[in-house]
Amino acid sequence: MKTDIQIAQEAQPLNILEIAKAENIDPKYIEQYGNDKAKISYNLLKEDPDRKNGKLILVTAINPTPAGEGKTTTSVGLADGLHKLGKKVAAALREPSLGPVFGVKGGAAGGGYAQVIPMEDINLHFTGDFHAIGAANNLLAAMLDNHIYQGNALNIDPKRITWRRCVDMNDRQLRNVVDGMGRRVDGVTRQDGFDITVASEIMAVFCLATDLTDLKERLSRIIVGYNYDNQPVTAGDLKAAGAMAALLKDALKPNLVQTLEHTPAFIHGGPFANIAHGCNSVLATKMALHLNDYVVTEAGFGADLGAEKFLDIKCRMTGLVPDAVVVVATVRALKHHGGAAKAELGNENLQALEAGLPNLLQHVGNMCDVYKLPCVVAINRFPTDTEAEIRLVKDKCRELGVNVVLSDVWAKGGEGGEDLAKEVIRLCEEPDKRHFTFAYDVNDSIEEKINAICTRIYHADGADFTAEAKKQIRILTELGFDKMPICMAKTQYSFSDNPNLLGAPKGFRVTIRNVKVSAGAGFLVALTGDIMTMPGLPKVPAAEKIDVDADGVITGLF
Amino acid sequence: MKTDIQIAQEAQPLNILEIAKAENIDPKYIEQYGNDKAKISYNLLKEDPDRKNGKLILVTAINPTPAGEGKTTTSVGLADGLHKLGKKVAAALREPSLGPVFGVKGGAAGGGYAQVIPMEDINLHFTGDFHAIGAANNLLAAMLDNHIYQGNALNIDPKRITWRRCVDMNDRQLRNVVDGMGRRVDGVTRQDGFDITVASEIMAVFCLATDLTDLKERLSRIIVGYNYDNQPVTAGDLKAAGAMAALLKDALKPNLVQTLEHTPAFIHGGPFANIAHGCNSVLATKMALHLNDYVVTEAGFGADLGAEKFLDIKCRMTGLVPDAVVVVATVRALKHHGGAAKAELGNENLQALEAGLPNLLQHVGNMCDVYKLPCVVAINRFPTDTEAEIRLVKDKCRELGVNVVLSDVWAKGGEGGEDLAKEVIRLCEEPDKRHFTFAYDVNDSIEEKINAICTRIYHADGADFTAEAKKQIRILTELGFDKMPICMAKTQYSFSDNPNLLGAPKGFRVTIRNVKVSAGAGFLVALTGDIMTMPGLPKVPAAEKIDVDADGVITGLF
Repeated sequence: MKTDIQIAQEAQPLNILEIAKAENIDPKYIEQYGNDKAKISYNLLKEDPDRKNGKLILVTAINPTPAGEGKTTTSVGLADGLHKLGKKVAAALREPSLGPVFGVKGGAAGGGYAQVIPMEDINLHFTGDFHAIGAANNLLAAMLDNHIYQGNALNIDPKRITWRRCVDMNDRQLRNVVDGMGRRVDGVTRQDGFDITVASEIMAVFCLATDLTDLKERLSRIIVGYNYDNQPVTAGDLKAAGAMAALLKDALKPNLVQTLEHTPAFIHGGPFANIAHGCNSVLATKMALHLNDYVVTEAGFGADLGAEKFLDIKCRMTGLVPDAVVVVATVRALKHHGGAAKAELGNENLQALEAGLPNLLQHVGNMCDVYKLPCVVAINRFPTDTEAEIRLVKDKCRELGVNVVLSDVWAKGGEGGEDLAKEVIRLCEEPDKRHFTFAYDVNDSIEEKINAICTRIYHADGADFTAEAKKQIRILTELGFDKMPICMAKTQYSFSDNPNLLGAPKGFRVTIRNVKVSAGAGFLVALTGDIMTMPGLPKVPAAEKIDVDADGVITGLF
Repeated sequence: MKTDIQIAQEAQPLNILEIAKAENIDPKYIEQYGNDKAKISYNLLKEDPDRKNGKLILVTAINPTPAGEGKTTTSVGLADGLHKLGKKVAAALREPSLGPVFGVKGGAAGGGYAQVIPMEDINLHFTGDFHAIGAANNLLAAMLDNHIYQGNALNIDPKRITWRRCVDMNDRQLRNVVDGMGRRVDGVTRQDGFDITVASEIMAVFCLATDLTDLKERLSRIIVGYNYDNQPVTAGDLKAAGAMAALLKDALKPNLVQTLEHTPAFIHGGPFANIAHGCNSVLATKMALHLNDYVVTEAGFGADLGAEKFLDIKCRMTGLVPDAVVVVATVRALKHHGGAAKAELGNENLQALEAGLPNLLQHVGNMCDVYKLPCVVAINRFPTDTEAEIRLVKDKCRELGVNVVLSDVWAKGGEGGEDLAKEVIRLCEEPDKRHFTFAYDVNDSIEEKINAICTRIYHADGADFTAEAKKQIRILTELGFDKMPICMAKTQYSFSDNPNLLGAPKGFRVTIRNVKVSAGAGFLVALTGDIMTMPGLPKVPAAEKIDVDADGVITGLF
């Protein structure tokens, strides 16, 4: 069986100018990065502003197993399926982080015959966006510590600095550090720490910005810490926003690449789906919608985290509304939710499969009943799935009135996604009876909003707030930061805040440990449990297998 | 008077494909980065390997003042001057670091009418090379600490780790840190620190590598620390070299841009000139020589550091030999060496000027007498220079038989560099009576090599070695690392190791504080005094003035 990288390297990509031409992009907006990547200027969006947007399809999933359920693969295959059916379509996806590439997960550019290419570039530096975000993050940190060192005119309390440095690497060694050690000229000694670049607020700001001016304003509002009078100190106060925006001005242009089947793909931005909202950039989604009749996009983790934030944060801030939602499920993950052991997931187990279905059904219910969106389940076929297992999922879903389609894009590419594509087209073309609603009113109190997500989306009995969380909510409300949407930071493995509660748990409460504001991004982060913002490498890092030969051909990327 | 960025932004660049065409570069070797930057594949060098190389001109300088003496400006203007005279010529220059851009110095892409463009891009992320180098550096660090955390099979002594993390930013706060704090799962607590990316050994390796295979071999040899048996542990031992090379494979392709006058410029690599050798990449120099009749390149700091390393390290490792050397001097810097106060450098002062000349003469003497190279002095004209001052320098040089030309490229571009260009052509076309020699024999002992540099180049009475340096020399010799060239890490402001000894000091000795091996780069670093590998930001960082408008136009870059 061929590996992903073998399939990708055997592909015959079209020159990116041909892809851009098929998208009717005026050459003046195109900046080539080699023959198979390009950045497209956001100025394109100013042209023909009355053009009717295409249909937006959101791909989300059930609660994942650690291996992922194939949202990106399904998104790529669905776009290829729509393309095969003659639709003008693009995918709008997230950029991978270097951390997982060298850690456990490997690449994140789809899989099998449903991939975006050039997969090696996309998985490594791509067009440098994440490096630009890291540089902007670390410039702000350097200016902050330099300000304190040079006399601290803003009266910043070094004990209350919230801004952390970042690196696009899984490096647990940097989670907790003491810096500014040494002599007086070596800075001010304090506790500090690093996050992985994708967890930086700059990444969230970058993905939510609607243009360069909005980007700069958001950067200015970023809070780096508090002064001795308990007032927030911002990047604007440090006069850092202009230089940060200068570092980000090219990165902000969406990246155009193609799938193995030459379907255009905009791959841009990739914020964490816990500490941030987990969707590709607003600019790329808007650009893809501006140029196409159908756009397939994805949101990180399961629908409880990714889709909820896509809808309650990204859609709320931009006015976007999906025309259809695809919930991806795999037989393996459903068996996992039904109690099958990890080592047994490759074996037929109809009992565990049926026991795991409530997880899927609850996600579908949320999309249809809470958000009032048309929805289809895509069973993302794995080679180990048996016919009986697939039949069981289909039959049970249909019994319960759930719309379900088998997707076989990993093995067959666009052809394997045609059935899903047809159902998505049907949902998009149906007379519009929807009245899309959010899960909560942004003007409610912080506690009310968090409670609404916990009860309506997670189906918990309610949220409990620690003393620290209550204190922070009081302070944030006093500072006027309460009228923002909520970004839940929660385990992706369960509807609850306990990763071991699989399926569709009932009778639990969610503990809110703390609440912090991401003033630049424009949301409040509600933290449940320990949220990892700097992963570590495993015992045998994937990096050990990666190599490049004398001709520059990379091997060992998954 | 227009600023550098205004002049650069008013330029009408040619499409980079036109520049490449004028260089006779087959399109298959070109990777465009937008319309005005391209990477050129190193495979080009395999074609027509018997082609006679062009003439190589090294631009170096007297000991600088903190403002720099205009080596890059002179290099660009000289290339433009040669271009104006109808020669097929390219510049081969270093890439700027982000640190100085946001700190004091501002941009490093030439100045006035002798600049390379797009200056904003070149000064910011350019084509991402430094980010790739930083990522490779930090991947190695993460794999090293992960190895120790996961059981330390290689028996690495955490107290003897020599590998540091890096960031391309002036950030004094990171010079000395303790990392791996927190819980057991947060790594192994140890002292650590960060360097600026340009000071990373990866940068030196990158600039000395002759192809991807050589790069990977050099990366493998990098020493990250020592085990409990006092044996070096390498990147190869950690199985990191393949993934590091994969991160660097595109960065290794030289970058092609143009000057304001459309002269081709290869801008690639930029190692520190103290801890490393301070020259642009071997691959870019070779590519420029392969394609042109004349190539103008530069070496960092003054000729005692930059040219010495260019000749004794880069030329020794590659077989390159300059056909002519240009020593840049400014009236301002000569007055500084003659004792004029910093605030008075703009005022006419013939006495200080004459008193400063020995600094220039000693550099010229080194080039002619030690290295046996044809040499010309370029007086890089500043607006504040008086006619009497320029006449004095010219007259005194001619009296002493020193070849001297006035260069006015900052104000006039290539036209202002034509006289210098003519003299350089004359030197290159003279019947070759040279017998280029190195300053020392690489097979001599470490002490002998260091002594040779100190006495022959610095004109010191000799070198003194601290007990620590003697111990390290003994260990390095035992480990077989003694037959390598020496990379001196010394202040750039003086021939001596004391920055306050200006002019051409006599009767001093140089103290060698320590010696370390850069096994990947292939040289031994001899440390004199405190060498800064992580600068700090000034009271008012240049970043505060940098901005970008709604159309993406950057202001405030110098």
